[in-house]
Amino acid sequence: MCFMSVGVRTKKKYISTVAYDGTHYAGFQVQPNAPTIQQSIEKALERIHKKPIKIFGSGRTDAGVHAKGQVFHFETELEIAESNWTRAINANLGRDIRILETVEAPLDFHARYSVKKKEYRYFLHRGAVENPFRRLYTYHIPRTLDMELIQQATQLFIGEHDFTAFSSAKSNVQNKVRTIYRLEVVPMGDELIVICEGNGFLYNMVRIIVGTLIEVGLGNISLEHIQEAFITKNRKLVGVSAPPQGLFLWKVTY
Amino acid sequence: MCFMSVGVRTKKKYISTVAYDGTHYAGFQVQPNAPTIQQSIEKALERIHKKPIKIFGSGRTDAGVHAKGQVFHFETELEIAESNWTRAINANLGRDIRILETVEAPLDFHARYSVKKKEYRYFLHRGAVENPFRRLYTYHIPRTLDMELIQQATQLFIGEHDFTAFSSAKSNVQNKVRTIYRLEVVPMGDELIVICEGNGFLYNMVRIIVGTLIEVGLGNISLEHIQEAFITKNRKLVGVSAPPQGLFLWKVTY
Repeated sequence: MCFMSVGVRTKKKYISTVAYDGTHYAGFQVQPNAPTIQQSIEKALERIHKKPIKIFGSGRTDAGVHAKGQVFHFETELEIAESNWTRAINANLGRDIRILETVEAPLDFHARYSVKKKEYRYFLHRGAVENPFRRLYTYHIPRTLDMELIQQATQLFIGEHDFTAFSSAKSNVQNKVRTIYRLEVVPMGDELIVICEGNGFLYNMVRIIVGTLIEVGLGNISLEHIQEAFITKNRKLVGVSAPPQGLFLWKVTY
Repeated sequence: MCFMSVGVRTKKKYISTVAYDGTHYAGFQVQPNAPTIQQSIEKALERIHKKPIKIFGSGRTDAGVHAKGQVFHFETELEIAESNWTRAINANLGRDIRILETVEAPLDFHARYSVKKKEYRYFLHRGAVENPFRRLYTYHIPRTLDMELIQQATQLFIGEHDFTAFSSAKSNVQNKVRTIYRLEVVPMGDELIVICEGNGFLYNMVRIIVGTLIEVGLGNISLEHIQEAFITKNRKLVGVSAPPQGLFLWKVTY
């Protein structure tokens, strides 16, 4: 007999996977005076809870960067069935942010600290004329690229390295050693997809790696420059950040 | 010896294929107080010519409808090489309108009156949750559809029919007989593509055909209703217009 169970509100933790078109947002993380993904989702949860609810993302994404599988968690005392959360949050969000799935998580789960692996994908459009339907989701680079050199360059990034040269100077973390498990450039119709998997990423790291691969393909940066950049940690040896609209946070693994 | 040839300006006619994202436009045709595709292209040509230049499209597209292969022609006295026109016009256009190709045409060619065949494609997204990256280019219809009934319904449209019931009452053409050569519903990942080819299309005709196919799939309109609509020309027997963002003018054949 459970006389007390109706009134007892136990806290539950939920983990949601979310896709978003980052075009009109100043990135994931809450910022003063600029619309962000986190802010939109927290507002949606506030409407459901009638009080502020904080979410914790797997990490930030920059202004204009998209996500196919960003993950966040939140805690709630509301007794909404697991299968109804996705619809409830989506009903309070704009169409450019869509919760894909929401499941209950153990209370010690943390969307940021429990991450095992992250996958990013960067889309390059190679057609002679830019594609108007892909302009918000690709970087148009119609110039000739030496694909063999690019393939060789990808191999230099695999494994554990100090990525200081391949991150923004604005990055304020101390330890800049990260492990890249996979870096591949895969053709797909008139696009190239750069697939990058690692245990963690520094600020702007994927975009600088992609920018560097492009410069390698154009013949402006050599494989030796990349090796030197890992040793000297000199940001000036490598490419500029590729623009945000080609980048997708694709998958977070726990 | 051609002493005179430099000063002699002969009129040439060019035909351009253009792709556009119709999201932010009030359709193809010039309208007062609203941005249109035609207006944008005419402004681009005016910048090149330093005088107004009129273009003639293969036909209109509605507000919010896209084109992968709209065609227009224009006349010019400027001596720009055929191969340079595409780049010249694109340099004066926003990124959501892209000229794909420009070739010289015989002077009796007319982008509208010389049309032999047009192909439209309509994209339906079938995923349980709307895809934020396809929201501007598909119509999200997650409900269960009877695909066999839809396939049967497509057959009723093939051939020559009076499409009065399948066009907007705003259509002001007299002859509403058109011939459909092809109407197919093709699955592609989590989308369905409705491919429709015909010798010409009335105002809203493709969107009403798609809206009707959806109602057939939902069990709300029977095959008999469609047959009756062809005979009685009663617009009320068939489906509402499917929304504009799923529709693409795909190809114009001359």
